Amino acid sequence: MDLFGTAGVRGRVEERVTPELALAVGRAVAAEARARESERGGSPEDPPRVVLARDGRVSGPAIAAAMEAGLASGGATVSRAGRLPTPALAHASRGRYGVMLTASHNPPSDNGIKLFRDGVEFDRDLERAIEARVDAEEPPAAWDAWTEPDRVDVLHDYLDDVRGYAAGFEVDGDGAGNALDGLRVAVDCGNGMSAPATPAVLRELGATAVTLNGNVDGHFPGRGSKPTPETLRDLRAFVADANEGVDEPGRDGEGFAFGIGHDGDADRIVVVDADGEVVHEDTVLAILAERYVRASDAGDPVVVTTPNASGRIDERVRAAGGRVERVRLGALHEGIAAVRAAAEPAADGDAGDDTEVVFAAEPWKHVHTAFGGWIDGVCSAAVIAVLVASEGLESLREPIAERPYRKVSVDCPDGRKEPVMARLTDRLPAAFPDATVDTDHGVRLEFPDASWTLVRPSGTEPYVRVYAESDAVDELVEEVREVVASAVAEAES
Amino acid sequence: MDLFGTAGVRGRVEERVTPELALAVGRAVAAEARARESERGGSPEDPPRVVLARDGRVSGPAIAAAMEAGLASGGATVSRAGRLPTPALAHASRGRYGVMLTASHNPPSDNGIKLFRDGVEFDRDLERAIEARVDAEEPPAAWDAWTEPDRVDVLHDYLDDVRGYAAGFEVDGDGAGNALDGLRVAVDCGNGMSAPATPAVLRELGATAVTLNGNVDGHFPGRGSKPTPETLRDLRAFVADANEGVDEPGRDGEGFAFGIGHDGDADRIVVVDADGEVVHEDTVLAILAERYVRASDAGDPVVVTTPNASGRIDERVRAAGGRVERVRLGALHEGIAAVRAAAEPAADGDAGDDTEVVFAAEPWKHVHTAFGGWIDGVCSAAVIAVLVASEGLESLREPIAERPYRKVSVDCPDGRKEPVMARLTDRLPAAFPDATVDTDHGVRLEFPDASWTLVRPSGTEPYVRVYAESDAVDELVEEVREVVASAVAEAES
Amino acid sequence: MDLFGTAGVRGRVEERVTPELALAVGRAVAAEARARESERGGSPEDPPRVVLARDGRVSGPAIAAAMEAGLASGGATVSRAGRLPTPALAHASRGRYGVMLTASHNPPSDNGIKLFRDGVEFDRDLERAIEARVDAEEPPAAWDAWTEPDRVDVLHDYLDDVRGYAAGFEVDGDGAGNALDGLRVAVDCGNGMSAPATPAVLRELGATAVTLNGNVDGHFPGRGSKPTPETLRDLRAFVADANEGVDEPGRDGEGFAFGIGHDGDADRIVVVDADGEVVHEDTVLAILAERYVRASDAGDPVVVTTPNASGRIDERVRAAGGRVERVRLGALHEGIAAVRAAAEPAADGDAGDDTEVVFAAEPWKHVHTAFGGWIDGVCSAAVIAVLVASEGLESLREPIAERPYRKVSVDCPDGRKEPVMARLTDRLPAAFPDATVDTDHGVRLEFPDASWTLVRPSGTEPYVRVYAESDAVDELVEEVREVVASAVAEAES
Amino acid sequence: MDLFGTAGVRGRVEERVTPELALAVGRAVAAEARARESERGGSPEDPPRVVLARDGRVSGPAIAAAMEAGLASGGATVSRAGRLPTPALAHASRGRYGVMLTASHNPPSDNGIKLFRDGVEFDRDLERAIEARVDAEEPPAAWDAWTEPDRVDVLHDYLDDVRGYAAGFEVDGDGAGNALDGLRVAVDCGNGMSAPATPAVLRELGATAVTLNGNVDGHFPGRGSKPTPETLRDLRAFVADANEGVDEPGRDGEGFAFGIGHDGDADRIVVVDADGEVVHEDTVLAILAERYVRASDAGDPVVVTTPNASGRIDERVRAAGGRVERVRLGALHEGIAAVRAAAEPAADGDAGDDTEVVFAAEPWKHVHTAFGGWIDGVCSAAVIAVLVASEGLESLREPIAERPYRKVSVDCPDGRKEPVMARLTDRLPAAFPDATVDTDHGVRLEFPDASWTLVRPSGTEPYVRVYAESDAVDELVEEVREVVASAVAEAES
Repeated sequence: MDLFGTAGVRGRVEERVTPELALAVGRAVAAEARARESERGGSPEDPPRVVLARDGRVSGPAIAAAMEAGLASGGATVSRAGRLPTPALAHASRGRYGVMLTASHNPPSDNGIKLFRDGVEFDRDLERAIEARVDAEEPPAAWDAWTEPDRVDVLHDYLDDVRGYAAGFEVDGDGAGNALDGLRVAVDCGNGMSAPATPAVLRELGATAVTLNGNVDGHFPGRGSKPTPETLRDLRAFVADANEGVDEPGRDGEGFAFGIGHDGDADRIVVVDADGEVVHEDTVLAILAERYVRASDAGDPVVVTTPNASGRIDERVRAAGGRVERVRLGALHEGIAAVRAAAEPAADGDAGDDTEVVFAAEPWKHVHTAFGGWIDGVCSAAVIAVLVASEGLESLREPIAERPYRKVSVDCPDGRKEPVMARLTDRLPAAFPDATVDTDHGVRLEFPDASWTLVRPSGTEPYVRVYAESDAVDELVEEVREVVASAVAEAES
Repeated sequence: MDLFGTAGVRGRVEERVTPELALAVGRAVAAEARARESERGGSPEDPPRVVLARDGRVSGPAIAAAMEAGLASGGATVSRAGRLPTPALAHASRGRYGVMLTASHNPPSDNGIKLFRDGVEFDRDLERAIEARVDAEEPPAAWDAWTEPDRVDVLHDYLDDVRGYAAGFEVDGDGAGNALDGLRVAVDCGNGMSAPATPAVLRELGATAVTLNGNVDGHFPGRGSKPTPETLRDLRAFVADANEGVDEPGRDGEGFAFGIGHDGDADRIVVVDADGEVVHEDTVLAILAERYVRASDAGDPVVVTTPNASGRIDERVRAAGGRVERVRLGALHEGIAAVRAAAEPAADGDAGDDTEVVFAAEPWKHVHTAFGGWIDGVCSAAVIAVLVASEGLESLREPIAERPYRKVSVDCPDGRKEPVMARLTDRLPAAFPDATVDTDHGVRLEFPDASWTLVRPSGTEPYVRVYAESDAVDELVEEVREVVASAVAEAES
Repeated sequence: MDLFGTAGVRGRVEERVTPELALAVGRAVAAEARARESERGGSPEDPPRVVLARDGRVSGPAIAAAMEAGLASGGATVSRAGRLPTPALAHASRGRYGVMLTASHNPPSDNGIKLFRDGVEFDRDLERAIEARVDAEEPPAAWDAWTEPDRVDVLHDYLDDVRGYAAGFEVDGDGAGNALDGLRVAVDCGNGMSAPATPAVLRELGATAVTLNGNVDGHFPGRGSKPTPETLRDLRAFVADANEGVDEPGRDGEGFAFGIGHDGDADRIVVVDADGEVVHEDTVLAILAERYVRASDAGDPVVVTTPNASGRIDERVRAAGGRVERVRLGALHEGIAAVRAAAEPAADGDAGDDTEVVFAAEPWKHVHTAFGGWIDGVCSAAVIAVLVASEGLESLREPIAERPYRKVSVDCPDGRKEPVMARLTDRLPAAFPDATVDTDHGVRLEFPDASWTLVRPSGTEPYVRVYAESDAVDELVEEVREVVASAVAEAES
Repeated sequence: MDLFGTAGVRGRVEERVTPELALAVGRAVAAEARARESERGGSPEDPPRVVLARDGRVSGPAIAAAMEAGLASGGATVSRAGRLPTPALAHASRGRYGVMLTASHNPPSDNGIKLFRDGVEFDRDLERAIEARVDAEEPPAAWDAWTEPDRVDVLHDYLDDVRGYAAGFEVDGDGAGNALDGLRVAVDCGNGMSAPATPAVLRELGATAVTLNGNVDGHFPGRGSKPTPETLRDLRAFVADANEGVDEPGRDGEGFAFGIGHDGDADRIVVVDADGEVVHEDTVLAILAERYVRASDAGDPVVVTTPNASGRIDERVRAAGGRVERVRLGALHEGIAAVRAAAEPAADGDAGDDTEVVFAAEPWKHVHTAFGGWIDGVCSAAVIAVLVASEGLESLREPIAERPYRKVSVDCPDGRKEPVMARLTDRLPAAFPDATVDTDHGVRLEFPDASWTLVRPSGTEPYVRVYAESDAVDELVEEVREVVASAVAEAES
């Protein structure tokens, strides 16, 4: 069973991510965890511990109960953590296992399962082991290995740690948040799990957060749970209108310095500027990436990102003295691990050890590696607020070139994706001879002026996707689309 | 000790409403409850039960723990209900006792204690009994009468009942809220306890609620916890801007039909119209009063209100065939009881029994008597939403004359209030010979055109207050002020 | 699927009563409850409520979580009641549904499911409906009908009610238990759920309870969870030794008036006399039956029991002016319903209504019908303690003739049970012409001196069972066994 | 206010250890903890954390709520740990603070407060600081420093650690408890907090525990909560009778190898041998002391005990190569600290560091220093069970001489205690010239044959106490009594 797509286990709760599935996955996780602990010489008296949380979805309590049943009857001890943002669960999973029940920004009819070990999402190897055990219908453990759950309150510790981490970015701060000095920020929680987290952290850092949709409600009544320019229209209008005629928005108790939009489980963040416009996701990424590279003492600071992320990131990272590594979508944690592995000191004890992954991100999703190995939108909100308070959003954006961006889909039946991509590996470089080619994750062409295009098959739908960013983006997309379409047509015949 | 002012026990938690006070009040409540149960022949084996809740204030957990200690060591069994809106606690106190820890709209440094028996706030008699026991330092009960608390989840039942009650007001409704049909409403929860209540009820009634400050936070970061035109400026701007250029605000997914602002514990409600203007509190009161009188089958439907409430209420109530009774501020429940007592059937079994209190309210605070005997802002929000969905806010307001209103304060030392008021009882009627006079709660003059003025001493500050509502309000206030000032001057000499 | 045997759903948790089964049963119960509520015109907004509890077994938390997942995803609201004796859960199920997870006296590797509606176990009709839905793999309800559980603390109310009920049996009592006056009782809780119940009730009634195995432990370390003369040897020795040389055991702070042994979930009770001997289960039954008949004001007081219960019950019930009705094993609640149904007033409004089921019991399991419609060992303990305090155990036993009793099993393959029983319906009466014959539940013969024998096929094993009670029990059993064996032999050929 | 006697804060809950006192002490503890954290440079953002637990007393919930109110309004974060044995709370207080609400073995009408920091009871310095703050009526912290409690489940981790520690004493064990191989032990929990602890640990070590009074009940119905030969009569009879005629009691499923009696909070342990006789408390102490000295690798293994502990301890410790240090009653933790302080390496970096406190105990109260710095009766139960399983109780006792012991009280008004003791410091050595004299804690004489006497003023009553242990104890006591009486008489004149 192919449980884990690029987005992890996710789908409708009546059909796909049912309590039955959660029970089976819980059983499999417990069994796999016990097997691995036992390999390491752990005592059978000490069952592995799994922190279990959920977001605010209507289906959460039932799915959580089923997951608990699976884990406990598989011999793992469950620590019930209640409702949490995903990054808070990831934080709590350090030194143990973690299960987060969330469908992130999917509609309210869905739910999903994210698995963590020691603060990092399961890698492919662990995912495959879980799939195998689910397929084999892992039986219960012996009755006397079943466990009783306990409860843990972990949100407070997480928020404390985020606050402390973000306060470290204050230029003139004393760590107690005074540098934010009442900076006003509008936060659209989208009725999701950022509600008990981001506003509290901002307050403790000294800012004033006014929230939209700050009541947790699994029906997501206020807006769609995926933050887009469209679903954030209330936030954008709220910020824009409040700032009308205000000299220094968000200072002196008037208006808002910027706005924040989160998804349902707060791993994702969208930033809105003082005019109510969404700041391009790659710009946010570039701001953070540059900052982390600059702040690093490492000889070889690395930023890990995904193929669909803009070349503007590369520009800023290079300018700051770092380098960018790309990894397939949804696998930032594997990219981090790969860079670290490659940096292992050579046999002669030399080199390598000065490589450091200082930041890893795909659009809207940021891993603050010095804070923790998980995607963390609450931490992003805190760090960005501190940076904006110190320098202003406009001066942070200023050095970053924003070029027009497009994404189109070309029809291509699933069965033909492979031959089409094989053909394109030759055809595209041939069609654009002045571009640098990278075929690690689809075919990515980068041009001398840092404009770029990426062609890759969709993992879930019958399309080949074309992404492009360029001052002349429409022309570029059209040229690429034609090459792709003719490759599809050829494969048909 | 004069614990209970017009606003109940309320004040700063470091000095006045301390854990020590909460413990003493809890002990007194338990002892008084046991004494009364015992008088009624209750068994000593059955300790009285007290539901205990708090609002979202930072001091809430500590005050609640102290209150629980006082109640339990006094021999009453505590049902911990966690964080609730005040009306939900009142609802849960039916058939038992209730303690609500809230300072309503006071600043975050304060807390307070509201006491309920069987769904109604303690009357003066019970308050005095508590004061006497606190003064006498009520000792603990015998050790084996001490109790262990249990926990109850009561919010869901309360919301269900509110929903069912409000759905009864739908003109074409099927009780399932379809008549609201997605009506969009903006709700500013002010980081208070309406957050888990009002938006959920509106959603279940079929509306779409977008919240401001919907994250519960005892620091009240989003705005002052008292809803005023000033503290509601974000809500007002949000509604007004969203409705710009929209034909039918709050219909068809655009804009908002109206806005709602609550205080910290959700007993109070302020309504904002589609232009972002606050609807006068007396207008809201008149709309509901008229509606309840019209809907009543009673021969003598009565609306209870306070002296500071406008004559426009009287107009609409009379027009609908009812009458208005006034009672001192903060004592609606006593007014309701008094009207009911007066309506007891005479000895000959005749009459009286057709009197019914259909509504009781002071500005921003509404007792929906058919629903329950407590002030309930959540219920008001639900009923108003249903009325607006059926008829539109403008057509509800239209018959109600809104005259200009003023309130001024005339300096008057506490010691002189009594002689001043005695003098004014004669002077004011003499100065305005065409007015009807009512001296039950201060001196109230009502003129033939329904304009009115009220003069009363402040309960907490060295002032005599003058309220007036009139098409020529400035002149009226000035005339009255002069009469008052000269009475004060005379009392001085 | 034949889920419900005579003992309900019960078996090993690794194979039979797995979390997967609990999830499926929970889903089915929720769906069936919703269907029935809907038939009665209930609103879809009001999901049925199910109180969920478990005994102290190691597998309890996981099975309970799975059951909760099934119920919640089926659209029923779960009230988590934690660990309880089965009768306390039954008591809490009044006015709603109840699910008790217990394997009663089975070994610790087992668990089971007992289903209640309004204080009574599911009847065959409801059981079949559940089986059908489990077989059909009842799917989840629509996502927005899924529910969130709440928690309830119900033990205290149950114990209060038991205390009040039992106090009513005091001869000179004041209802506060003073008549027990320190009566000493030894209670062997068997590490089961009677531990937080029976000793507390006895204490509140004024007795002094000393417990054996009063620590709840799902491994049942202290003794086998089924109370038998063998597993109760520690209790029996404890009582006997403590009473050695004591004049009035259990009075004046010395020794014990009697002992009590419960099973794992406290529906079952065994009584030990002051010499440490187990009082025959039918004697206990006869004492209670006689008492209830005598106390009844009904014209036609009825005791319902099962075929394996002794004729001494009939003797005492008849002597007291009542009658006995028998019903198949495990179906006391159906027997009660049947007697009540038969007693419905005739068309002419006459008669019938004076029939009352005053008690219903099978050996060790007592339904105190005036208290509630469930088997209740805690209530039995309290009532027996009050009776013993008033009259002494010996004088209660004295009028009851105890004859020797035997039970043997005759090999008989499952497939042959039916023809064998058909044959025996003729053969046995022919072999014992002076006996009265009853073939409602197996073949039961009763002789003029009240001795009796019962022949019935086992529901779970390849045997035909022979029960007999007689002053010459060995001869009687041997005669019957021969008739049975020859019937089996004939069926074979 | 002299809050802390030798037994800590303890007394009747209606008068002395009231909720009011608990609130005041909680406030003081929080304030003192904050002051000390702040001195160490801790951040004001990080409030000190206090784990709070209680034993099973009826007054526990109310006292705990008051204590929580005091701590939270004083600015410390409370982790509610529910009902626990005292040693489990002490274990949980490592790295933070701990408050245990228990009156140990006092009657059910009492309660008390024990304070811990980092696994050790407060020393005199901290106690005085708390007394001073209580006297000064420590006010609440600023409102925004008040905290919200969380909950923790710590019992499981404690039991795991005890099990692991005790398993280390198995001679042939594999750490999984197999060496105990079903050893049967009778445990009288006295309705106290050992019930969820000792039997579970014994089970996990492989023993079979049968409990008496294993149901937690704050009325202590089964026996007095102080374990004495008299209150343990049921346990003693139970063990003795079960072992009658059994060859190897507690082996092969028959009888009991030994019995254990705990007090209400499980810091105290009494051991009963296979004949049902209480093993002398000093013998238990000597067995453990010798064992720990033998097992130690330290060059200077030290056992800390109190003046009232027998010379047989000294004998065994010396024989095993260690030394004994005595400290005043109730101050074992200070004795441990003093020995460690004295052992600090000298300026030349030499020596000292080879001193190790291997055990510290007063009668019935044992500090297993390698496990933790608190008195731990559960740990004692586990260690003793492992030793008995390996070697048999009789062979453990065999080398220890048990001499007769007496304790008498001589009348002496409080005001005269000081001059009397001064006189006795000279008189007693003069009267017994062959004895070694120690005047650190009263006057203690030790004779060449290891018999001894101790004379000390009572801390709470108008007596001078005389303790003695000797083969001719009556003569010795009489001689000493005379010396004391004449000293009292002289002081009078």
